Amino acid sequence: MRILAVDPSLRGTGFAILEESGKSTRCLEYSVIKNHASLSQEGCLLAIHETLGLAIKRHEPTELAIEKVIFVQSYATAIILGAARGVAVLAAAQRGLTVHEYPPKRVKQAVVGKGAASKDQVAFMIRALLGLTETPPSDAADAIAIGITHLRTVSSPVHVVTATRGK
Amino acid sequence: MRILAVDPSLRGTGFAILEESGKSTRCLEYSVIKNHASLSQEGCLLAIHETLGLAIKRHEPTELAIEKVIFVQSYATAIILGAARGVAVLAAAQRGLTVHEYPPKRVKQAVVGKGAASKDQVAFMIRALLGLTETPPSDAADAIAIGITHLRTVSSPVHVVTATRGK
Repeated sequence: MRILAVDPSLRGTGFAILEESGKSTRCLEYSVIKNHASLSQEGCLLAIHETLGLAIKRHEPTELAIEKVIFVQSYATAIILGAARGVAVLAAAQRGLTVHEYPPKRVKQAVVGKGAASKDQVAFMIRALLGLTETPPSDAADAIAIGITHLRTVSSPVHVVTATRGK
Repeated sequence: MRILAVDPSLRGTGFAILEESGKSTRCLEYSVIKNHASLSQEGCLLAIHETLGLAIKRHEPTELAIEKVIFVQSYATAIILGAARGVAVLAAAQRGLTVHEYPPKRVKQAVVGKGAASKDQVAFMIRALLGLTETPPSDAADAIAIGITHLRTVSSPVHVVTATRGK
């Protein structure tokens, strides 16, 4: 399975393409869409939508894993973050990807083992888990963490306990 | 000047195409993009983006007037509303429209004359102002009101007072 994972924000959307085959997970690409402070909001949205669209075209993932936003500083921030998130979801939906959301606590729990992990801890664990030669920038690491959470969620084996009758 | 005006929301985005020539303002089209409660969030975003894109293609407006969101019930609502707003802005930016925002109070002030006007008052005034034969649905009326606010803002003549010296 190949997925696109996204940690959206107007000025620094992290994203990654992850592939799982058998028990191994590979990161095919990770990046941060950095939008300069001088770029208009609509310019940022264009950049996010276009960059993610091109990544989808390159790698043809079938699913999107994206952060479910719970806490933000203000309503104004929420509206702007929502816009960044919206165009990311749109880019995926336009190419038929299914959309899966994970709240930050669950992502940290899945990757680091505790819901209150720091950004540095997440990046460090991502590097170790995927055997990367460098620590990814934190926005990209957050995206990878969201992707790993999704892969672990969908590939969790269902434990079937079969009772064997003793003779 | 021809503009696209949008009052965004996930389930009921109102929009209108307005044209101003000389002192007259005409409404070339108004509509509400109604997304059923059973449609996924990504399905709604696709519908908003595609419908506005087609309206822009039909009428070729050069500017977008959109509500600047100030108050929302919750962060969750703000994120969702932000997404609807984001794909509307994207649809416009992809076709080169400039983006102009107006807070709701200013829109009501411009159209009804008071910042605390009800939705019904806005719809009634829109009908009267444009000489429409029916009262538009309130989401469309809100979009038209945003558009009228923009047209009045950009076409306000600058009053130049020239002092004439008396002999």
